[in-house]
Amino acid sequence: MKFTFVTLFPNLVEPYFQDSILKRAVDSNFINYEFYNPRDFTTNKHNKVDKQMVGGGAGMLMTPQPLFDCLDKIKESNEEAYIIFPLAAAKPFNQNDAKRLAKKKNIVFVSGRYEGIDERVIEKYANEVFSIGEFILTGGELPSLVMADAISRNVDGVLGNSDSLVMESYEDNILEAPSFSKPENFQNLSVVKEFLKGNHSKIADLKYNLAICKTKYFRPDLVTNKKIKN
Amino acid sequence: MKFTFVTLFPNLVEPYFQDSILKRAVDSNFINYEFYNPRDFTTNKHNKVDKQMVGGGAGMLMTPQPLFDCLDKIKESNEEAYIIFPLAAAKPFNQNDAKRLAKKKNIVFVSGRYEGIDERVIEKYANEVFSIGEFILTGGELPSLVMADAISRNVDGVLGNSDSLVMESYEDNILEAPSFSKPENFQNLSVVKEFLKGNHSKIADLKYNLAICKTKYFRPDLVTNKKIKN
Repeated sequence: MKFTFVTLFPNLVEPYFQDSILKRAVDSNFINYEFYNPRDFTTNKHNKVDKQMVGGGAGMLMTPQPLFDCLDKIKESNEEAYIIFPLAAAKPFNQNDAKRLAKKKNIVFVSGRYEGIDERVIEKYANEVFSIGEFILTGGELPSLVMADAISRNVDGVLGNSDSLVMESYEDNILEAPSFSKPENFQNLSVVKEFLKGNHSKIADLKYNLAICKTKYFRPDLVTNKKIKN
Repeated sequence: MKFTFVTLFPNLVEPYFQDSILKRAVDSNFINYEFYNPRDFTTNKHNKVDKQMVGGGAGMLMTPQPLFDCLDKIKESNEEAYIIFPLAAAKPFNQNDAKRLAKKKNIVFVSGRYEGIDERVIEKYANEVFSIGEFILTGGELPSLVMADAISRNVDGVLGNSDSLVMESYEDNILEAPSFSKPENFQNLSVVKEFLKGNHSKIADLKYNLAICKTKYFRPDLVTNKKIKN
């Protein structure tokens, strides 16, 4: 899997691939990444990539020309390029998307800055548009990284122990149950006693029920059809 | 506003404050940041911070001792520390949270790694727990940065032009309308013609209607009570 980041600020993105799990994944060739900077494609004599909005509105937008030329170049050099725009106004990115997109050969993330991107760029080039949540960020770099991270975990080989992918939040629309590590007692705080008794079917039932309770508390919208097991 | 990051991987976090808007905000003293590494607090002779799960389950959890000692130290040095855990199983972080939390003096983000954090740590120390979306990441560093970025935009002074905060997605539960920049025509793609005519009340109505259409398409759950203006 190759991630291509189209961004004015590659320094906000690259360090995330230089430590921990994604560094190992890059070193082992399970994933790799590259950058394109729209500023390298502008024909503006002052090197600008933004222009005023048409029809009024505060702030500047990323204007079509540099992004058109940049994205044409990317598509020319790789016909499997799959272009994603992280946007505030888009469909929510979720774990099923992360799994589905992990099968692509090359994902291109186009990061907006300023007040956003001229809609003509999105209409012409987007294969998909995603929002990572109901909040506003200073640019598209963090949501691009969030998606790249969530997708990478599902690329074969990236996580050593594939068991880690088995039981997770948002699988089957429920949140994960609370987890406890050794020691069983720490500063008079004990783990849930049932977890210590070694009856794995009872533990599984209890975990399921705790997961349902947690989901009902934090995300009542997800649990309308779930039943607590007895 | 001071952001305190509790993380095993500060190198994944710090570069985001060293370029673009957040760098300027740091340079101008509107925000600042610091790091605590739980590994500096472990009493384990091999310097470990993770232990096996109790009750079965693949992978390792961040164990209570290093985090208890680290968070006690942070609370000792700053009684206004407000501790947030980014978790997969938690309530969704949204723009109202970003605005509300921008009024705090010191926000502490505790990043989990491995299979997560022993629940006793969360129960004892969390002021709030947030999920940034329905997907799974390799650690809590990116969601901590996402929240820090969304919050920073709402800290006085960080965005030069405070107009930029006025009309945004998720304000009033609708997504932003499409935006266009100059030139009005680019490669035979034109901006919406009405935007060119200079009638600002008509443009405002049209933008509202386009915003409603976009919201109905991407987020039908948000728009049940909204009416299109005639």
